[in-house]
Amino acid sequence: LQDQGWEPLVRAHVSVNPAKLKSHRQRWNVRPSEMSKKTLNPIRAIVDGMKLTPNPEKPMIALSIGDPTVFGNLPTDDTVLQAMKEAIDSHKYNGYAPSVGYQKSREAVSNFYSCPEAPLEGKDVILTSGCSQAIELAISVLCNPGDNILVPRPGFSLYKTLAVSMGIQVKHYNLLPEKSWEIDLQHLESLIDDKTACLIVNNPSNPCGSVFTKDHQHKILAVASRNCIPILVDEIYGDMVFPGCDFQPLAPLSSDVPILSCGGLAKRWLVPGWRMGWILIHDRNDIFGTGIREGLIKLSQRILGPCTVVQGALESILNDTPPEFYQGTISFLKSNSEICFSELSTVPGLNPVMPTGAMYIMVGIEMEHFPDFQNDVEFTERLVTEQSVFCLPATAFEYPNFFRIVVTVPEEMMIEACIRIREFCARHYRPRSQDSHELDQ
Amino acid sequence: LQDQGWEPLVRAHVSVNPAKLKSHRQRWNVRPSEMSKKTLNPIRAIVDGMKLTPNPEKPMIALSIGDPTVFGNLPTDDTVLQAMKEAIDSHKYNGYAPSVGYQKSREAVSNFYSCPEAPLEGKDVILTSGCSQAIELAISVLCNPGDNILVPRPGFSLYKTLAVSMGIQVKHYNLLPEKSWEIDLQHLESLIDDKTACLIVNNPSNPCGSVFTKDHQHKILAVASRNCIPILVDEIYGDMVFPGCDFQPLAPLSSDVPILSCGGLAKRWLVPGWRMGWILIHDRNDIFGTGIREGLIKLSQRILGPCTVVQGALESILNDTPPEFYQGTISFLKSNSEICFSELSTVPGLNPVMPTGAMYIMVGIEMEHFPDFQNDVEFTERLVTEQSVFCLPATAFEYPNFFRIVVTVPEEMMIEACIRIREFCARHYRPRSQDSHELDQ
Ligand SMILES: Cc1ncc(COP(=O)(O)O)c(C=O)c1O
Ligand SMILES: Cc1ncc(COP(=O)(O)O)c(C=O)c1O
Repeated sequence: LQDQGWEPLVRAHVSVNPAKLKSHRQRWNVRPSEMSKKTLNPIRAIVDGMKLTPNPEKPMIALSIGDPTVFGNLPTDDTVLQAMKEAIDSHKYNGYAPSVGYQKSREAVSNFYSCPEAPLEGKDVILTSGCSQAIELAISVLCNPGDNILVPRPGFSLYKTLAVSMGIQVKHYNLLPEKSWEIDLQHLESLIDDKTACLIVNNPSNPCGSVFTKDHQHKILAVASRNCIPILVDEIYGDMVFPGCDFQPLAPLSSDVPILSCGGLAKRWLVPGWRMGWILIHDRNDIFGTGIREGLIKLSQRILGPCTVVQGALESILNDTPPEFYQGTISFLKSNSEICFSELSTVPGLNPVMPTGAMYIMVGIEMEHFPDFQNDVEFTERLVTEQSVFCLPATAFEYPNFFRIVVTVPEEMMIEACIRIREFCARHYRPRSQDSHELDQ
Repeated sequence: LQDQGWEPLVRAHVSVNPAKLKSHRQRWNVRPSEMSKKTLNPIRAIVDGMKLTPNPEKPMIALSIGDPTVFGNLPTDDTVLQAMKEAIDSHKYNGYAPSVGYQKSREAVSNFYSCPEAPLEGKDVILTSGCSQAIELAISVLCNPGDNILVPRPGFSLYKTLAVSMGIQVKHYNLLPEKSWEIDLQHLESLIDDKTACLIVNNPSNPCGSVFTKDHQHKILAVASRNCIPILVDEIYGDMVFPGCDFQPLAPLSSDVPILSCGGLAKRWLVPGWRMGWILIHDRNDIFGTGIREGLIKLSQRILGPCTVVQGALESILNDTPPEFYQGTISFLKSNSEICFSELSTVPGLNPVMPTGAMYIMVGIEMEHFPDFQNDVEFTERLVTEQSVFCLPATAFEYPNFFRIVVTVPEEMMIEACIRIREFCARHYRPRSQDSHELDQ
């Protein structure tokens, strides 16, 4: 300690007040908060627990990463990059924006998504740091500790990560692979109680690659309406559906259920790192009222919105990106999905479910035919060891005995990966005898 | 409802289970969460409550906004913009970065701030969405609901906003205007109890524009060390100190107190909208251990870090921005501060405190000489009505009877504002008679 002049004064204070001293810590004891300990990422937990040692004779193929940019085969459009450079050159987007985003940028989003059945204005848009923060704000404003939320199984893990960290209980409703991953509505409704604060719907789906029909969405809305549960719909893969299939946003189908629709630039514009997301507030019956809107604005003031340069570029990104860009991405995803599906559907022991959108395909494993492995985690772990192909075990999505393939990899890689998966399965597949089958019944 | 086929099934379910129905909500009742209601921004609360109608005969001068970019007189450096455009052109920064930031970008920050007494590596840096999120993560990882934190008065309001929203109690320690806004260390220490999870220090200070000496910081560290309290130091104005004054970061002065230093590009590089901040983890005695580090990493996964384009530009921004840029900003701020200080120190009834850094000047109001106004809020409100000059009442910083001036405005505006403030004060100043003065004693 440098200055001695002051010290006696402070010591005097301490010695004058010895009782007080007792309440002070006498030794260092800095522990991470309960909330940080409760912020669990199941994907990390599972992947970190896996022994991922690729076969040195085969180059690694990672079909695990939900980042379409990693292989360089799916660049964003030049319009998007140009818009960013113009925003920088304009010198107009260096200062603070309002915490919910520039009015002009909010209007760009509302104009882009507004439709007669569900009109939107700038005030109905909250710009966020990625769709992740959109989801965080939406859960934060709708739920209190002790409440519960309904989330899909299989489903994107962030919902649970966020909810659990906030002391909100998670109830999983089932998706039905045999019905193109539609929601088991009876199961869904059976989970609702008076502590249910919100229903989370994800469409198109990560990890399923499924897209709900209009009819199905009407039924989901009916459940929410009957039980007076607001919906958080995660439409980050909105419009990323294959030709022949139709993406129907949820909000225009509802006249009463209040809906927070979360989205962003990450997937459709192929710039996930830019962290631009949004919440669209749909509340035609004024059920959210000013409370939820003001709550969202207040919460946004904690970290003050997404990067202003991206905000400045937003209008041009949304309005000027040519349709061919979107179509190019989609036809690539569809073609890769078809390759993957047709390859794997002839592999004994595997049951891929053909997707209709997003960038994933779920593959069921008939575990009874793979006695070498206890579960999907061991299956995918060994697939790395032997074939240097890494797919996420669907246990990471609360859905054991499946694995998820990301279909954004270059076509050759997709093909090569399927060949290796076939080889792997052929090696470990055990056709079950009549006997053992009966024993199991 | 479109599809009737399914409906009976669902209805059947409901009617089979009438008991269950009771627990469902029968009407809409969507309320904002407690947390959103507890997220209070005192500046908004105060400013929104003020009647801010400028004098139509005088153009408005806003000395209230802590955004150095609004008047266009303080542009960022070309190097900074160029680095962004190169990051965009490289096509390398569109995908997801790790949630704590690219390793290379973290290393750029650690290299920039590392020094022999407080060495830093990439792993000691967490990149965040602005200094605001750095502060949010630091509080989140160190504190549990029911704990308390020590924050400066006057001080930046975000500390309290965040803490209160998380159920953390805020205890204000006094800064002493007569001692260049040094901390009242006795007062500080008297506030510590066994629920004190963290001491927040802000240096250079918003709203004071003060800069702590090395000696004073040693004494702050002594208090923290004696009581085993970790420090969150907000050094967002680090290095923004006037010639002749020296900025001393806190961490190199400490050998034992674990410190999270929060900073970012916002102020020194004049790009607050870009939302690039960081936490530097200083823990030479391994008191944080892996717990706090892992806690920060987990918390960062909630919204996945700052915009990758800015991350990609970071190394060049830090290393290539010419010294003249920083010096230019500082000499401008100093010159404006001197103008403002010398103008206002001859105004009867006002007591400006000369700053030595940051971009603010605090001005004391001798309220007893301004009987027209109850407090600083009324004083600054009427200053708008009569003179179209808006300064934040320091009640927004928990420090009544002062107001804060932002000194980033163009020089002519600064001069004009001072003239108008003088005129305003002359009009309302009442020299107090001997009598009334004695009555008050
Ligand atoms: C269903 C779903 N929602 C949200 C996100 C997060 O999006 P963002 O990167 O914009 O935060 C993802 C990312 O993979 C996702 O799959
Ligand atoms: C003391 C202080 N800390 C933190 C911040 C927030 O910085 P950022 O804009 O990087 O979130 C500010 C902004 O005014 C500030 O004055």
